Amino acid sequence: SKYSYVKSFEVDEKILPQVWIVVRLDGRCFSKFAEEHKLQKPNDERCLRLMEHSARKVLETFDECFFAYGQSDEFSFVLRKQTNIFNRRKSKILTCIVSLFTSAFVFYWKTFFNDVEMKYPPSFDGRVILYPSDQTLRDYLSWRQVDCHVNNQYNTCFWLLVQSGATPKEAYETLKGTYSDFKNELLFQKFGINYSHIEERFRKGSTLFKKPREDLVNPSKTVFEIVLTHEDIIKSEFWNKHSDLLSS
Amino acid sequence: SKYSYVKSFEVDEKILPQVWIVVRLDGRCFSKFAEEHKLQKPNDERCLRLMEHSARKVLETFDECFFAYGQSDEFSFVLRKQTNIFNRRKSKILTCIVSLFTSAFVFYWKTFFNDVEMKYPPSFDGRVILYPSDQTLRDYLSWRQVDCHVNNQYNTCFWLLVQSGATPKEAYETLKGTYSDFKNELLFQKFGINYSHIEERFRKGSTLFKKPREDLVNPSKTVFEIVLTHEDIIKSEFWNKHSDLLSS
Amino acid sequence: SKYSYVKSFEVDEKILPQVWIVVRLDGRCFSKFAEEHKLQKPNDERCLRLMEHSARKVLETFDECFFAYGQSDEFSFVLRKQTNIFNRRKSKILTCIVSLFTSAFVFYWKTFFNDVEMKYPPSFDGRVILYPSDQTLRDYLSWRQVDCHVNNQYNTCFWLLVQSGATPKEAYETLKGTYSDFKNELLFQKFGINYSHIEERFRKGSTLFKKPREDLVNPSKTVFEIVLTHEDIIKSEFWNKHSDLLSS
Amino acid sequence: SKYSYVKSFEVDEKILPQVWIVVRLDGRCFSKFAEEHKLQKPNDERCLRLMEHSARKVLETFDECFFAYGQSDEFSFVLRKQTNIFNRRKSKILTCIVSLFTSAFVFYWKTFFNDVEMKYPPSFDGRVILYPSDQTLRDYLSWRQVDCHVNNQYNTCFWLLVQSGATPKEAYETLKGTYSDFKNELLFQKFGINYSHIEERFRKGSTLFKKPREDLVNPSKTVFEIVLTHEDIIKSEFWNKHSDLLSS
Ligand SMILES: Nc1nc2c(ncn2[C@H]2C[C@H](O)[C@@H](COP(=O)(O)OP(=O)(O)OP(=O)(O)O)O2)c(=O)[nH]1
Ligand SMILES: Nc1nc2c(ncn2[C@H]2C[C@H](O)[C@@H](COP(=O)(O)OP(=O)(O)OP(=O)(O)O)O2)c(=O)[nH]1
Ligand SMILES: Nc1nc2c(ncn2[C@H]2C[C@H](O)[C@@H](COP(=O)(O)OP(=O)(O)OP(=O)(O)O)O2)c(=O)[nH]1
Ligand SMILES: Nc1nc2c(ncn2[C@H]2C[C@H](O)[C@@H](COP(=O)(O)OP(=O)(O)OP(=O)(O)O)O2)c(=O)[nH]1
Ligand SMILES: O=P(O)(O)OP(=O)(O)OP(=O)(O)O
Ligand SMILES: O=P(O)(O)OP(=O)(O)OP(=O)(O)O
Ligand SMILES: O=P(O)(O)OP(=O)(O)OP(=O)(O)O
Ligand SMILES: O=P(O)(O)OP(=O)(O)OP(=O)(O)O
Ligand SMILES: [Mg+2]
Ligand SMILES: [Mg+2]
Ligand SMILES: [Mg+2]
Ligand SMILES: [Mg+2]
Ligand SMILES: [Mg+2]
Ligand SMILES: [Mg+2]
Ligand SMILES: [Mg+2]
Ligand SMILES: [Mg+2]
Ligand SMILES: [Mg+2]
Ligand SMILES: [Mg+2]
Ligand SMILES: [Mg+2]
Ligand SMILES: [Mg+2]
Repeated sequence: SKYSYVKSFEVDEKILPQVWIVVRLDGRCFSKFAEEHKLQKPNDERCLRLMEHSARKVLETFDECFFAYGQSDEFSFVLRKQTNIFNRRKSKILTCIVSLFTSAFVFYWKTFFNDVEMKYPPSFDGRVILYPSDQTLRDYLSWRQVDCHVNNQYNTCFWLLVQSGATPKEAYETLKGTYSDFKNELLFQKFGINYSHIEERFRKGSTLFKKPREDLVNPSKTVFEIVLTHEDIIKSEFWNKHSDLLSS
Repeated sequence: SKYSYVKSFEVDEKILPQVWIVVRLDGRCFSKFAEEHKLQKPNDERCLRLMEHSARKVLETFDECFFAYGQSDEFSFVLRKQTNIFNRRKSKILTCIVSLFTSAFVFYWKTFFNDVEMKYPPSFDGRVILYPSDQTLRDYLSWRQVDCHVNNQYNTCFWLLVQSGATPKEAYETLKGTYSDFKNELLFQKFGINYSHIEERFRKGSTLFKKPREDLVNPSKTVFEIVLTHEDIIKSEFWNKHSDLLSS
Repeated sequence: SKYSYVKSFEVDEKILPQVWIVVRLDGRCFSKFAEEHKLQKPNDERCLRLMEHSARKVLETFDECFFAYGQSDEFSFVLRKQTNIFNRRKSKILTCIVSLFTSAFVFYWKTFFNDVEMKYPPSFDGRVILYPSDQTLRDYLSWRQVDCHVNNQYNTCFWLLVQSGATPKEAYETLKGTYSDFKNELLFQKFGINYSHIEERFRKGSTLFKKPREDLVNPSKTVFEIVLTHEDIIKSEFWNKHSDLLSS
Repeated sequence: SKYSYVKSFEVDEKILPQVWIVVRLDGRCFSKFAEEHKLQKPNDERCLRLMEHSARKVLETFDECFFAYGQSDEFSFVLRKQTNIFNRRKSKILTCIVSLFTSAFVFYWKTFFNDVEMKYPPSFDGRVILYPSDQTLRDYLSWRQVDCHVNNQYNTCFWLLVQSGATPKEAYETLKGTYSDFKNELLFQKFGINYSHIEERFRKGSTLFKKPREDLVNPSKTVFEIVLTHEDIIKSEFWNKHSDLLSS
């Protein structure tokens, strides 16, 4: 039609070749969402499992997405450096991942939350970030896992203090400016909790990655299994153990 | 932490000031989704109403989004030219709208589809398109409404032919290269259908827009009502009638 | 060759259609350049004329560039909204204009500076700025002309004070925080100068634009003459007089 | 002023951190420029030396530019991966380099061309290209040097054929589709020329790079010397010899 010239106003930025593509999404106003749905504090296992499951759907759907790391209300997806998915069109990649994750989150809610009714449709923002080297990609993931640790340690202390009778303001004052060691001590002395015995899911976040395996039916073919783990991904150990990941 | 330098790799493009911002989303592989969920052909009113309802949630949530037009598995949202939403960060705007729409689509599915179970989580891609003038914005919307008309007319003929015994291939051959007039004649002669009497929702698509209204409680305040309509938005009549829309 | 894959790393952003394209360039470290070449203060007519001449070469070379405005060590070029020059590739447009201007500046130096030897090669930075409407384009040009006026008035006062015996620090203190009226009074009272009688080139900057004229040889063809003027381009008068400019 | 809001329309893209930044410039319509100035064919040493000298000025001016490679009417500049020059603003980096190179080319023309008058101001286009790894950067430079070789070998044959009486068309036909070996044979058999004895400047192009050297006056400081060479930069030998270059 005579209107179709407007199509020429569409421009989808092409992502630089051979850099790691990360898509991070984050729940919008999840403080409120957690409140409204009475999520357990500081961590609600059902919610974390639902996040993991939604991330798994992304990995299943997009061959080129081989790694994901999540914690709290966020998830980061990594695409192979060499991928040519959607011709490396930035908005297309970004929206397809964010939309599928969101959809899965709502769709599988009842599987994880049973009786708890979802009150309104939650949503996630998303962004594409490019990392030119293995080092910067690993530093990115380390950044997120450190964030997980720091927040979780703080929140664990905070809510235990509150549960034990402190007002939020008092709990806040107790923890203000304190170091990691202090918080560990506090947990141990006051609550008899060894922080390192807390669930790994809470302390380390959730890592999903694709592990190649020989196809039993067709041995010349490689199939990928999606593995979920809650280990340290900052140290080299993890990456050495799964050395195929960054060479992909 | 020593890793936080990686944050500096994030760059969210800022959208040029004072241009119309359009976000169009489109169902991914909806041919398959329609098939799997046995959607009515060529138009499934439940699905269109669900799309409209999801679009309404976007308009309700984002003050700055004042207009939406949808048809088939797509919806376009228009943001005020002067908006400063999210500081005009492109990816943030794009993902927040696409994610909320997706979420609403899954969340409200059962309201429109009752007994029909959703089989798997659907998703939508999205893109931002900028239009520098009222004329180009209107041409964009006209482009989508012409597309609605052309596809709907074709699909109506096609499925009637198939229902009346033709194979898909035969139906395709019958319609190949024919003009609008021919199709209208065919509908009338063969099926006794006056195309212009077909539901407006199918022929014109769905337009949602915000209509200002004096707040009854607080007369100095303007409140907005979201209006759903299925009229022609190509001709000037619509825009003259709602002259505040483009001056927003 | 096996290396040619690297070409795919080249991406030249395409400029949005139908917006005004402005290229502004600005002399790098022209304070030092002016000092080293003993340019007259506050304005050196030879330098301004050389700038104008270089700008003229840009207008002569690029059909699509129909307007330029310059002052001090800067020049802004405007390209037709509808231009398809270099397929609207941003870096190509930007560098071709900046490079040609620079080249002309060095090449024609001796024409304007005769005996004054150029001591080292000067250079200019450049940027592309997009304006979606006539109003924003005019506001841009007004911004530059106001800048010309404000700086010129200040510099005129400043250098007259210094010439009449003040130290630069004293001149600075005298002018700090003063308004336009004060400066006009100062010029008049102290130096007997009516600011509005100062050369228009200094007060208003330099405007170059293409004026259509019937080709005497071939009357059906339009040829363009490049006009140089030093008038007010903030008020509508100029634009009404040359109403073809913004409709181009 | 009330117009200064237009400044907000300026956006200078920030270049991704930690990638190699290449700026390549290329003479505009140098076929014509070579013709008009009667440059020697296929290579004019004066012109190549002027290009080298202009590139040297760029390296002298920008600390962060440590490597340049040129051939024919083009030059590529490489900036340190870690550079924060101009806050990595793309257009600023691009135009400053292109403008300075152009300026130097015109300014130093007479030093290299003596009596030959420059007839009109030449110009250069420019582009920024990003390479995320050492390998892709080296492949880029190899691509340019292979291009130098292929063009030079072809042009050498072509002009010798023409000088020896062939029409351009005949020379073209003789060379069409032939391989490197054939051309070497032709040079040797017909013109007694051993291609590998031709000047290295013509066969290998021009490489300029910064070599660190202890400052004689202040031994704790490193100074950089700019080295010009015409060697192979495809093989690893060069990069091993100057191993500091890519670790910069
Ligand atoms: N109770 C509870 N809250 C959680 C859980 N996971 C995340 N949250 C809450 C805690 C935080 O307030 C919030 C995540 O922080 P954000 O910085 O993403 O803030 P929020 O989503 O509220 O705002 P945003 O829209 O992202 O700027 O989600 C959980 O498992 N249990
Ligand atoms: N039966 C039925 N099908 C519909 C309805 N609305 C949309 N569809 C189907 C018809 C088309 O095959 C499809 C929309 O066309 P698209 O060009 O968006 O293709 P599709 O979504 O399959 O692929 P895509 O991922 O967008 O490239 O959705 C409906 O109401 N009823
Ligand atoms: N004496 C004299 N100086 C002039 C003339 N035109 C421009 N200039 C000088 C005055 C200012 O110091 C300078 C222009 O100001 P800018 O803000 O562009 O600063 P400058 O070029 O020094 O630094 P930049 O590299 O642009 O950040 O050029 C002139 O005609 N005569
Ligand atoms: N005679 C002669 N010609 C040269 C020399 N160096 C470069 N040239 C000419 C040969 C080529 O025609 C031209 C470079 O090729 P390009 O592909 O850059 O084409 P050109 O600059 O004409 O057009 P462009 O504006 O870059 O698209 O410059 C030289 O040393 N001697
Ligand atoms: O969906 P279209 O027709 O706008 O085209 P596209 O987005 O360029 O293609 P695709 O949907 O395949 O991404
Ligand atoms: O958009 P916001 O407010 O979440 O801000 P942000 O710049 O995205 O910050 P963060 O990465 O901390 O969510
Ligand atoms: O000069 P090339 O071959 O890199 O190609 P281009 O830049 O895409 O084309 P042009 O020189 O015509 O702008
Ligand atoms: O690059 P600079 O320092 O000139 O800074 P700028 O942001 O370009 O500022 P201006 O437009 O004032 O020259
Ligand atoms: Mg955020
Ligand atoms: Mg959040
Ligand atoms: Mg969060
Ligand atoms: Mg599509
Ligand atoms: Mg679709
Ligand atoms: Mg569609
Ligand atoms: Mg500046
Ligand atoms: Mg300057
Ligand atoms: Mg200036
Ligand atoms: Mg070129
Ligand atoms: Mg060239
Ligand atoms: Mg060339």
